[in-house]
Amino acid sequence: MSASTRHFEHVAVVGHFAIGGVREGQGPLGPIFDHIWRDDLAGERTWEAAEGKMAVQAVEGAAHGAGWQLGDVDVVVGGDLLDQLVSTNFAARQHQQPTLGVFAACASFAEAVGLAGLWCEGGSARAVAGAWSHHLAVERQFRFPIEFGYQRTPTASWTATAAGALAVTPGSGRVQLRAFTVGRVVDPGSTDPMDMGTAMAPAAWDSLQRHLRAVDGDWGQYDRVFTGDLGVVGSAILCDLAHDDTFSRVHDDCGRSLYRPDQDVHNGGSGTGCVAAVVAGHIVPRIEAGDWRRVLVAATGALFSPTSYQQGESIPAVAHVIELQAGRS
Amino acid sequence: MSASTRHFEHVAVVGHFAIGGVREGQGPLGPIFDHIWRDDLAGERTWEAAEGKMAVQAVEGAAHGAGWQLGDVDVVVGGDLLDQLVSTNFAARQHQQPTLGVFAACASFAEAVGLAGLWCEGGSARAVAGAWSHHLAVERQFRFPIEFGYQRTPTASWTATAAGALAVTPGSGRVQLRAFTVGRVVDPGSTDPMDMGTAMAPAAWDSLQRHLRAVDGDWGQYDRVFTGDLGVVGSAILCDLAHDDTFSRVHDDCGRSLYRPDQDVHNGGSGTGCVAAVVAGHIVPRIEAGDWRRVLVAATGALFSPTSYQQGESIPAVAHVIELQAGRS
Repeated sequence: MSASTRHFEHVAVVGHFAIGGVREGQGPLGPIFDHIWRDDLAGERTWEAAEGKMAVQAVEGAAHGAGWQLGDVDVVVGGDLLDQLVSTNFAARQHQQPTLGVFAACASFAEAVGLAGLWCEGGSARAVAGAWSHHLAVERQFRFPIEFGYQRTPTASWTATAAGALAVTPGSGRVQLRAFTVGRVVDPGSTDPMDMGTAMAPAAWDSLQRHLRAVDGDWGQYDRVFTGDLGVVGSAILCDLAHDDTFSRVHDDCGRSLYRPDQDVHNGGSGTGCVAAVVAGHIVPRIEAGDWRRVLVAATGALFSPTSYQQGESIPAVAHVIELQAGRS
Repeated sequence: MSASTRHFEHVAVVGHFAIGGVREGQGPLGPIFDHIWRDDLAGERTWEAAEGKMAVQAVEGAAHGAGWQLGDVDVVVGGDLLDQLVSTNFAARQHQQPTLGVFAACASFAEAVGLAGLWCEGGSARAVAGAWSHHLAVERQFRFPIEFGYQRTPTASWTATAAGALAVTPGSGRVQLRAFTVGRVVDPGSTDPMDMGTAMAPAAWDSLQRHLRAVDGDWGQYDRVFTGDLGVVGSAILCDLAHDDTFSRVHDDCGRSLYRPDQDVHNGGSGTGCVAAVVAGHIVPRIEAGDWRRVLVAATGALFSPTSYQQGESIPAVAHVIELQAGRS
């Protein structure tokens, strides 16, 4: 096994919590998410503070789902898209549990879950891993002020107002975290910040191939292989790169799962909270229910900043992979 | 032991590399750093790209110091202060080793080293952990354009142009990584972005106390207890909080170590690269040389962003702690 992949013998996912904003509540997964916000400010003064509130709710929800009190959580691992991870860190100021901030753009959730697994393996810890994003906080930071009302291009994704968190601990449960592969940064030279799918598909394929080799698997062993938020455009590119009928059959994408096509989201959902909410609110429950036995999640992140973009840099990307499997209990 | 502290039985620090910019080269540690830049742009087109170059040099240097080729590194764990960690991620695009990005502001280095230890413990991995900052890239992002030439206040720290990285692997060496405590976010209500020492001192004290309890230690067992970059102001506050002569005797601060008082840096050095360079270029070599046997490093980070500051938020802080000890070999 590659030393860039960690295999976990004994790490269970024992709690999960998914939150959606107003638009996400109207999507196909809205009815099964744990909590839907009725308005996207949620009583806060700023969009950024609302994102932080969502982070606290997700961490608390996952802990409670595991039967823990918030104070029982030894380590929170979390990430978001805002500069200096302010929603993760301001949430940590409130929940007061020791916190590790991670950043891999929209791949942060898989990094957080993998590190939570690493923390728990062989120990006695209780960890919560999560990620969150707020459409209105993220868009005004990365692209244009919302009030500007700019025309979105056909390849643009919709940054989700969503959060998801998993509670992870050593032991056996209905869902096991089985492996974690750390991604390499891959840059296909894409320069369009309105087309993340094209920028991220090669990184997804690089990490998925490396993970498959590391676990000595084949695509047919998986019930589903989810990418984070390649959307319609990036998923088509990924399947072209894979050029494998079995892969195309099992592949699905969290960004495509979060909204209906008629919700005007163009390429699909994106944002750190998108893959987090789909994993916590859809994938883990489906494994718990016995519908799926073995699922890969390759969370994908575009690693540009407004500064790097304005300096003429292309958009590098990364994908971190986690493998989930039905447990025996 | 608290489950927010991980104890490592068998993780060695086998390589280290410290880089300083022009001003850092003129400081007291300049002569012992591995590499000093002659100009702060280092042939790059932007300050941000220069910071990325420093990251690549630090990762390569630590790997080579361990006797590894760059391609032997299984995982790089790194962090910086720039939005979306662009220097860490653009460096990863170049060095092509699997990379985990972390963010805890100037506490990122200790988080990176702790996670590298976690990755290595019980495995066969080769990890490099590092952090880097560039004065001119960071200052224009967080405060004012450099060209504005604003007057720095007496409590302001000087963001270092510096980088440091450690190579970590399972086994025994001259320096062992012994423990890692994850910090809580502590907010004393400070609102002055020109006074990081006041904002961060309570977080440092919180994490140091929690670490000491977790390892069942006392301050007298340590040759040095370094904080990251509390500087003159924050160190005085910390020693007031500790109210313990033994602590005050063993306490030192990386931010105070990097420059001479006559270098006009006011409170001392700061920035993700400051503690990283001081640990990699000064602390680890002193342990290797047998001068010190047991050293704590509490890297401290102020978790504000320009957005949170402009929205009227106070400045929360965190400190992550790593414990280094002389090995037997």
